[in-house]
Amino acid sequence: MFILIGEILPHIAKNIELLMEFEYDENLKNKLNSFLDAIINAKNIFVFGVGRSGLVGKAFAMRLMHLGFNAYVVGETICPSFKEGDLLIVISGSGETTLTKEIAKKADNVVAITCNIPNTLAKISNIWIPICISKNEYLPLGTAFEFMAFIFLDVVVALLMKRLGISENEMKDRHCNLQ
Amino acid sequence: MFILIGEILPHIAKNIELLMEFEYDENLKNKLNSFLDAIINAKNIFVFGVGRSGLVGKAFAMRLMHLGFNAYVVGETICPSFKEGDLLIVISGSGETTLTKEIAKKADNVVAITCNIPNTLAKISNIWIPICISKNEYLPLGTAFEFMAFIFLDVVVALLMKRLGISENEMKDRHCNLQ
Amino acid sequence: MFILIGEILPHIAKNIELLMEFEYDENLKNKLNSFLDAIINAKNIFVFGVGRSGLVGKAFAMRLMHLGFNAYVVGETICPSFKEGDLLIVISGSGETTLTKEIAKKADNVVAITCNIPNTLAKISNIWIPICISKNEYLPLGTAFEFMAFIFLDVVVALLMKRLGISENEMKDRHCNLQ
Amino acid sequence: MFILIGEILPHIAKNIELLMEFEYDENLKNKLNSFLDAIINAKNIFVFGVGRSGLVGKAFAMRLMHLGFNAYVVGETICPSFKEGDLLIVISGSGETTLTKEIAKKADNVVAITCNIPNTLAKISNIWIPICISKNEYLPLGTAFEFMAFIFLDVVVALLMKRLGISENEMKDRHCNLQ
Repeated sequence: MFILIGEILPHIAKNIELLMEFEYDENLKNKLNSFLDAIINAKNIFVFGVGRSGLVGKAFAMRLMHLGFNAYVVGETICPSFKEGDLLIVISGSGETTLTKEIAKKADNVVAITCNIPNTLAKISNIWIPICISKNEYLPLGTAFEFMAFIFLDVVVALLMKRLGISENEMKDRHCNLQ
Repeated sequence: MFILIGEILPHIAKNIELLMEFEYDENLKNKLNSFLDAIINAKNIFVFGVGRSGLVGKAFAMRLMHLGFNAYVVGETICPSFKEGDLLIVISGSGETTLTKEIAKKADNVVAITCNIPNTLAKISNIWIPICISKNEYLPLGTAFEFMAFIFLDVVVALLMKRLGISENEMKDRHCNLQ
Repeated sequence: MFILIGEILPHIAKNIELLMEFEYDENLKNKLNSFLDAIINAKNIFVFGVGRSGLVGKAFAMRLMHLGFNAYVVGETICPSFKEGDLLIVISGSGETTLTKEIAKKADNVVAITCNIPNTLAKISNIWIPICISKNEYLPLGTAFEFMAFIFLDVVVALLMKRLGISENEMKDRHCNLQ
Repeated sequence: MFILIGEILPHIAKNIELLMEFEYDENLKNKLNSFLDAIINAKNIFVFGVGRSGLVGKAFAMRLMHLGFNAYVVGETICPSFKEGDLLIVISGSGETTLTKEIAKKADNVVAITCNIPNTLAKISNIWIPICISKNEYLPLGTAFEFMAFIFLDVVVALLMKRLGISENEMKDRHCNLQ
């Protein structure tokens, strides 16, 4: 059985290396830069995804709150109205998830994080972040996309910390302290 | 079978009449008044409950957001740090729910909405709102407390609308429009 | 201020009386009966709603689990695939909520709980449960529908207990005991 | 700015390599093996965590359901009673999260996934899975633990697929199809 760890971890590591393209590829670098600008300039940031993509989105939304942004998760209790100047970030491996498309259609400022194959969300979004993945039979369904999106968004958090000069202590100070 | 509706609805209606005590009973009237003041004076309002009491709390937190308050649900993604000047509202039929007590212990400004039997949450809270209910074998577990808390908190929303002069249209304008 | 309680509670009580029509009106009585049959005959029961309607749906799904049914909330983590023999229950005041309609379109056995004005969900569902409500300026947005749906579904729980001979103790035994 | 990607991704990759110890280190290998056995032998599997650890737990619980296990998330609507023969999996970077400890104390069969520093959850659990991480100022708060736990649990899914001979197609067939 344990042979598998030695097979699967290098495959995961190889996937993560693919994210280096956001530094080396001029087009991807520009997209990432536009994504950071969109976050920094938004009045409120809304995040949505279905299933595990939604969980990845929530993990990112929580860090946006820690960074001091007004972040909301569509579908959670206190999500307000989307207004001019706001930003919606949607996450979907296929870019074809029904509910995610319906929600994206209602917003007029959308960043879509999907796989790198052209898709509906890519088409209807203002900024498309394509995540290149390498599949494997033991990374079933959207697994590879999901951990890649998780790590990509943690990299985005790191870039925002650096660009805005936000320390870990400031983030800790905003961290929920009742649980 | 349908005889039961004729039995159970009058029992539910009788329960709801019990809420009139918040107008007639001086002590309850003062408690309600203090609750409204605590909401109006809070910088941020946190809501928590477990199970169906938690769902009732979320329904109330959503309306607090529609009314223009900074409301958060403990356990949801973007719940920030509880600070001085903030308010925690906890809901628990028994007043003895483990997680709810743990969370209440960490806040220093707590309103507890529980049944009217003395209990731990009542004791450790700054304001205790006791809800008097009449049980019935066909209102199993916390059912009577839960719909009573739901309706009581909708009455609180009505009182806040009236006191603050907030119209339904203002609330509609804040209502999530992406779903 | 407190005059309002005396205005609003009787209005809420009047709303609840409207539910008696499910006993007196032959058409509504048949609809309720079909709803109970659909629950009892379903392999798995899925529940969905957006916003406070969704919270009402979750409160009902929890009781279905306590009653011994295989109940799931669409959008929560462990919601499985909808298959032949399964039932979807959707809740929406207007019957026009975008996400709810999209989900209902994907299932082939749907009960829709909405207001009593003809609407899309009513049209595309197999069983339509129309809830008659009386609005009021201090019951903003979907408030009246939501507490009516909450109480109506608690009545459905009572009817299922009676019809299936399920005791409160059996339900207590299935109640989550880790929180 | 973009220098940072070239700094942070290799650090993330280095972290992931640390998971290889679950193949090389005899003690960790045995722990992993016991964890797999505990999952396979459980009647029902409950998962809990707070914050981003909770999101990681939900991502794993969803895959457990896809694999055919009876998985539940503590705190979600349809979580039933924990009984003899059931398993609770808790996730907490520090191993000291208040709510997670309270829940773990109520179950008698617990797997704790935490950092590799001795802690309360490690002590009160039946199986302790210590995750070794390498921190960095741009992986704030629990970030490194969280993506490591995410990936570790995806490796566990891969191992379960292999050991039980479960194909991606079977998992796809159980995947929620209403959204």
